[in-house]
This record gives sequence, C-alpha cells and structure tokens, in this order.
Amino acid sequence: MSSHHIVRDDQEPALIIANGASCNPELLGQLLEWSPLVIVLDSAMERVMKLDIKVDVLLGDFDRNFDPEYYREKQYPIEIVHTPNQDKTDLEKAFDYLIERKMPAVNVVWATGKRTDHTITNLTNIVRYRDLLKIVILDDHSKVFLLQRRFEKWYTAKTPISLIPIGLVSGITSTNLYYPLEKDDLMIGYKTGSSNHVTTDGIVTITHDDGDLLMMECAD
Amino acid sequence: MSSHHIVRDDQEPALIIANGASCNPELLGQLLEWSPLVIVLDSAMERVMKLDIKVDVLLGDFDRNFDPEYYREKQYPIEIVHTPNQDKTDLEKAFDYLIERKMPAVNVVWATGKRTDHTITNLTNIVRYRDLLKIVILDDHSKVFLLQRRFEKWYTAKTPISLIPIGLVSGITSTNLYYPLEKDDLMIGYKTGSSNHVTTDGIVTITHDDGDLLMMECAD
Repeated sequence: MSSHHIVRDDQEPALIIANGASCNPELLGQLLEWSPLVIVLDSAMERVMKLDIKVDVLLGDFDRNFDPEYYREKQYPIEIVHTPNQDKTDLEKAFDYLIERKMPAVNVVWATGKRTDHTITNLTNIVRYRDLLKIVILDDHSKVFLLQRRFEKWYTAKTPISLIPIGLVSGITSTNLYYPLEKDDLMIGYKTGSSNHVTTDGIVTITHDDGDLLMMECAD
Repeated sequence: MSSHHIVRDDQEPALIIANGASCNPELLGQLLEWSPLVIVLDSAMERVMKLDIKVDVLLGDFDRNFDPEYYREKQYPIEIVHTPNQDKTDLEKAFDYLIERKMPAVNVVWATGKRTDHTITNLTNIVRYRDLLKIVILDDHSKVFLLQRRFEKWYTAKTPISLIPIGLVSGITSTNLYYPLEKDDLMIGYKTGSSNHVTTDGIVTITHDDGDLLMMECAD
C-alpha cells in the first residue's frame, strides 16, 4: 500500500484517478504521496487495484455490471459513492463531491488518452469549475489548468507553453513569451496560442479580460 | 514496403502521419492500402522508417537538426517540402499542401496522444478547413470529423456517438440518438453532446444551423 494516507492535510490537493490511459507510475507515486484523499472512478478501479493503491472513495454510476461491494473489504475503510445521474460525466461528479467536502484543489490523472471524446470533454469541462475548485490535469507529457484573469509564475527559459482558448478569449497580454500577446483574442479552432515558449529565466505574466483560457505546460 | 503505391486514385483519401502517439499497425495498414499519397511530418519520420512504409512526401520545418536529405535515397522517389512558417502547425501545412494539389480528402493518424496541447490543437483546427478538405482523424479508439450542416449515416444500435462543439453550435436537431437534440445549442466547456449513442439500427440524422460541430465515433 502507498503511504499517502499517513499525511492528512486537506489543504493539499486531492487526487482523482479517472478513466483514460494510465500514466507513468512515477508521476502517480509523486501525486499519491501528498494527497489527503484518493478518489477513483469506477471504470479505473480494476487497474488501480493492480497497482496496490489505497483508495478512499470509489465513485461512479456502476453500470456494466460493476459491483462496488467487491471492493468494500479489500479497501476497508472506503466510501462508496453511487452517482447515477447521466447528465454529468463521472469526472464532473467527482469534482462536485470534492466541492461538497469543501476541498480547495485536486490533481487529476488518467483523464487523457484512449477515447478522444473523453479526452476533449475532460480537458475542456474544467472551465465551468472556475471559482469552485482548483483543478490540474496531468499526464506523462502535460500539465493543464485554467488561468485566472491574471497569472504570474517563474519559468526557466525555453519552457514550452501553450495557451488554449475554450471558446473565445479576449484581451490577452503576455510578458516573457517568445510569441508575445498584446491585447490579442484567441478562438478555439481558429486562432490558438499553442507551442509558444518562455524567452528568459524569470516571471511570465499572462492576463486576459474575458473567456476561459487553459494553460498547457507540455513536453515531448 | 507496403503495397499502397500500387493503387493510385486521387479520389481516395491521402494519408498524413502526424507527430502524436503511434496507432495500432493494423489500422495504419488498412489506411495505407488504399491511400494514393502518404505524407509524413518530420518529427514522425524516424518512427515511420522503422515500419518499412513507402513515404511520398516528407514535410516539416526541419528544426532540431533534422536532415531531410538523409531520406532522399532511402525513400526514392520522395518529395521533400520545407515549411518554415511558424504561424501554422506542420499538420496545417500538410493540409495546405493537399489543397494545393487539389486532393479532396485525407485521413490523419498519429495526431492524438502524447502532448495534450498538440492533441487538442490538431483535433480542433480541422474546423477551419470546412469547405476545403474532407479530414478524418483516426486513432485506436476514435474517428473524428467535422459535420456538414446536414449529416445522415446508417449505424447499428448502441454505437457510441459524441457531438463536440468547437465554440458555440446552435440549432442542433437529431433523430435516432438515445439523448435526442431538438433545436439545442451546445457550447464547448459548458454543454457538450459527449457519450450519446444510437437508439436502433438505422439512419441517424444530425442537422445544425450554425457553428462547428465535430462528430466523434469512439469505443473503449
């Protein structure tokens, strides 16, 4: 069993293991180490069991003959949350669960890869949680999160940075990016800020007036 | 060498091998068999060489010390297209190349997986080619293409269908889908038509008034 359950500080991000492609075990291990709460979506549960991870919450609609009771003893103590509502994805229901528990932040793994419809839905639907939950989606090549109206962070030179607008984003201005933005608009499908990078070691600033702008820190 | 070069009918779709995750060799083999033209983006070329595929066009910005001449003899005859313009992705430049050659259609593989910024950019940027090129993006779990204002196709019951709006799409109406749409609007990040499915064996009809709507046929 991982040691994640020793540290319990609800200010650290929770961890959701979703239903896409598995990530590198090393990335998963780092995230588990500090996570106060591990939520697994039902369709990932069998793969998670094989990794010998202690799960705190098993959540899903439990369709396709999924039997959650099978895990009650093997993962004791575990909370089993049945979410049959078909208007939301299981990942969104896990976000709702965390908001109800007043958790401030969450890392999400296994949310990308495999089915393209799930990948694009998982990535883009985080924008609706803007002021409710700080969400970071991670995989072996990528770290994705929603930018606040003003964003500042220190980066080393040449760090790849992609700005992906979910819909129309207006009035974007940047400092210390190789392809600078100056009160620019970006629009998904038509004009995006993919494959930019940091100019020099130091602070990068990105501000925007309106819309939902995703930051993607990615590497090959 | 594959046998794809025996069949040369410019009405069949060309094939682009892009820079994401490799797909199942069986899928690649099926697409190669009928493709009149195989274009490979530079960053995929080494992986393609190992698969013993005859390449017709090698295209890219050739950065990172990439030497296209190395392949001229190994892939003779091959057209080498240098596209240094940094305002477009290499995949978009490959689309432009095909439009210039008056090819009507293209299948794209290896456009998803790995970097999330590349995946979302590759998937969503196809909407700008609406009346210029019929584009289908395929991977091991997914088939993605832009819907015309009126779409009709025969499906078997329970086929999973996801409708992903790139921006705002208005006035969507469907027949023979389990979650029917009736003059509905969808908006990326806020309301999408992911994880629908076909009700009964037969024709599915999807019409919309405005916007860019992607069809994703996906399976686990």
